[in-house]
Parts: sequence; C-alpha cells; structure tokens
Amino acid sequence: MEATDLPVPPAAPGSAAPAAEPGRGPAAERTRRSGYRRLPVQQRREQLIAVALSLFSTRPPDEVSLDDVAAASGASRPLVYRYFAGGKQQLYEAALRSAAEELTSRFLVPQRGTPTEQLAAVLDGYFSFVAEHDAGYGALLRGGSVVETARTSAIVDEVRRTALRRTLRYMGVREAGPRLTLLVRSWISVVEAASLSWLDEGRQIPPAELRDWLVDEFVAMTATSAAHDPQSAEVLAGLLALEAPGGRAARLLERLGGLRVTAEEV
Amino acid sequence: MEATDLPVPPAAPGSAAPAAEPGRGPAAERTRRSGYRRLPVQQRREQLIAVALSLFSTRPPDEVSLDDVAAASGASRPLVYRYFAGGKQQLYEAALRSAAEELTSRFLVPQRGTPTEQLAAVLDGYFSFVAEHDAGYGALLRGGSVVETARTSAIVDEVRRTALRRTLRYMGVREAGPRLTLLVRSWISVVEAASLSWLDEGRQIPPAELRDWLVDEFVAMTATSAAHDPQSAEVLAGLLALEAPGGRAARLLERLGGLRVTAEEV
Repeated sequence: MEATDLPVPPAAPGSAAPAAEPGRGPAAERTRRSGYRRLPVQQRREQLIAVALSLFSTRPPDEVSLDDVAAASGASRPLVYRYFAGGKQQLYEAALRSAAEELTSRFLVPQRGTPTEQLAAVLDGYFSFVAEHDAGYGALLRGGSVVETARTSAIVDEVRRTALRRTLRYMGVREAGPRLTLLVRSWISVVEAASLSWLDEGRQIPPAELRDWLVDEFVAMTATSAAHDPQSAEVLAGLLALEAPGGRAARLLERLGGLRVTAEEV
Repeated sequence: MEATDLPVPPAAPGSAAPAAEPGRGPAAERTRRSGYRRLPVQQRREQLIAVALSLFSTRPPDEVSLDDVAAASGASRPLVYRYFAGGKQQLYEAALRSAAEELTSRFLVPQRGTPTEQLAAVLDGYFSFVAEHDAGYGALLRGGSVVETARTSAIVDEVRRTALRRTLRYMGVREAGPRLTLLVRSWISVVEAASLSWLDEGRQIPPAELRDWLVDEFVAMTATSAAHDPQSAEVLAGLLALEAPGGRAARLLERLGGLRVTAEEV
C-alpha cells in the first residue's frame, strides 16, 4: 500500500503535515476529476515548499497568496491547507526555514586555497543564493513583511549566528572577545547590505566584482580592527601568514599604505 | 476657555488625537476622583509618546502594555485609548516616529574640524541615542517585534535613507553611482551592526573606542572602495585633502601599508 492510498486523519490545527495526501472519499474524487496530480506525502510537502519558496523569491511575501501556491503546484487550495493548516504564515515559515538551510549549507569553506580564495568561494555561493532568491532574500532581510513574526526573525537570526560561528571557525578562533565579535558581525552586515544594495540598484555590478570588493573589505576591516584589538591582530597575522606574496591581500594593503593625506604630499 | 475644558467629540477609530482631553461628564469625574492629572491636549499627547518611548527603550515592545504606559503617565487606560484609538500599535508607531526624528536630528555634521573629526562628532550623537534607547533601538533595527509592520519598517527605512543622503552630502557627492551607494549603505550597516553588537555584548567597549573604530573603518572601507571605483576614489581624495598630516586617517593608512603577508617577510 502506497502512502497516497492511506486514509487521511483530520488535520490537527498547526500540525506540520497530514499523514498522507487524500486518496479516498468525495474530496479525493473531486481532486481526481479536476485533474490535480497525486503525490506521495513527503514529496508533496517538499514540492509545496519549493513552489512557495520560488514564489516568495520573485515577489514580496505579501503579494503571494495560497491560491498562487496551489495553482503553481497543480494542487487544490484545500490540499495546501491540509499540509499547512496554519495557512500562508505556516507555509511562509516552512519556506523560510528551507531557504535558511539552503543558504547556510553554502557557508562551507573549501579545503584548498589561501584565506582570501576560500572566502571568495564562500561568497560565490552566497551570491548565487541571493541571485536565485532575489525578492525573497530582500523581504527576509529587510523585515517588515506582513508575515514577519518573532518566529521568522528567529530563523533569520539563526542564519546570522551560523554565519558568525562559521566565520570565526574560518578565522581559527574558538572564543571571540567583544571586539572580534563586533568586527565579524559588522562584516556579515556588510555582506547583507551589499547584497540588498546590489539587488536594489538593479544588479549593475558584476557578481565577481562584488565578491572581490567584499573580500577586500574583509581584509581592510580586519586589518583596521587589528590596531584596536590584540585578538583581531592575532587573527589577521594568522590569515596573512597563509596569503600569497603579491596576492589580493598584499596588493590591497600596499595600495592602502600608498595613499597619503594631501598635506603630506606638499 | 482652555483646551482642557473643550467638550470631547467621540474619538474616530484611527484618528491621531482627540480634539481635547476629557474635562466634563462622568468619565472626567471618575478621572478627577482617582487623582489623574489633567493636561492640555498637545502636551498630553507628547507626554504619552515620551513615556511610551522610554518604556519601549528599556523593554522589548512586546513586553510593554498600554496599562504600563497609562500607569507611567499618570493617566487612565481609556484616556490613552482616547489619544491613540489604534491602541498599542498606534502608540508604538508614534513613539517610533518620534525616535526616528530624534535620531536623524543627530546626523547633523558640525561645520568645523577635519572630515574624520566631523564623522566622530556625528557618531558621538548616534551612540548617545543608542545608549539612551537600548532595547528600543535593538527591537527597532532587529525587527521581529510583534508590532513590526510595513509602516514601522517604512519608518526605519526612512532613517536609513536619511543616513545615506546625509553621508553622501558629507562626502560632497550629488549623485552616487551603484558602487558608492554600495559603500555607504554598507558602512551604515556597520554602524548599526556595531551598535547592536555593543548592546548585546553588555557595552564592554567604551563608546569613544567604538566611535574611533567606526571612523577608522570608514576610512579603510572608503580607501578599499577607491581601488574598485573612480567615484569612490574621487570622494576619498577629497576627504583626505582635508585631513591633518599625522592625523587619524594618515596614521591608519600608514599602519595598513606596514602590514605584510608572511611570504614577503621571508
């Protein structure tokens, strides 16, 4: 007996998903007659989330209705409600959670390369996510969506906390003091602000340039923090020790050192 | 006849404020007997907003009730509702708008001083606001408050847009390209992230150190952008031309230039 043929218990309000997609009874008969496709439970659930995510990614969440999700999924509205008894809010949170998992899965630092090369690879993954999820990424980070709640904020906060943990691990830090935490959180906010600005300004900047800019800003910001904080100085020394001579970091620092205030040039 | 003695029309739902505080009728009688103070209309409105702002600043908005606002104002709950018929949400928005106006009023750049000194002065004003409004600042920027809506987000967005405009004016820029916009929005996000991190980490860093760190990061980030964007390079040159030799900016750039990747030291 397949999952699709299981009898369906009444969906409890707020339950994550029904035991199975309706396969019997008058509702199922209507569904069959109207030509909706039947799918196994888990597959249907994942499909609905994927469709919702794609809709939330191209339009602000307030402009996406459950009818849109149903239509784009080839499912009926009652079926969507059967899986997400909490309605649009629950579906939005599930989609957000799925997006958050996908985004954090791209934070993995490759084994090879200098620190700036590794960072560039992580940023490439990040921007491919931003480019794919456009409006959804904006709505997510900008907040203020009609469906923004303490729960959706917790999901976004968890992404930021994961980004903080991963960045500190990348830096080789076990326990960060307040100044290093300040630096890393600030840099993460630069990545977010840059992504939003990039989307808002119509993607005029090529992603590879944006990535290189962010890598450079990471080096510059960390190097600046090093003057204020011994822990940041230690992290910087550790990273620079692994950089290639004449590479990105070296060229940037040399260029910054070559800048002079006018009075010194006179 | 004083404003307090005017007859009170029934408050329309969503109206900004009643024509006058109740001075007659049984309700006024109860109010008088229970010892609440009577205030002229505009003064009462401002007082309620100020009290609400102070409560929202020390506790997350979800934990502040209209009863708290009434008690702290020496007003009755019905009176608070008379001024803010939309209830807590309307009062919260009014408090937020008032806070936003206060914050943006501190963005004014002093006439005297080098660019880094001017920036330091603006940041001092900003941090005094953050220190005063603590939880309210956090709830505001972090979003996810139960009372976060498209309207409250619009208020926060307007603060950011004002910060962007003022920073560009400070930089002497009339029309910013996408790369300079990227830089300035990123730097504003650093100010916000640093403020939140500072609050979250229990204000361990002295405000003056935080301010100097942000000024240095502004110089470093702008100098880094200069390598990627002619407009940023032009802005940087304009600012550095006004800096003192041996001043903050000069010392920072020299220190950054003195950093070497290990392989170059060998």
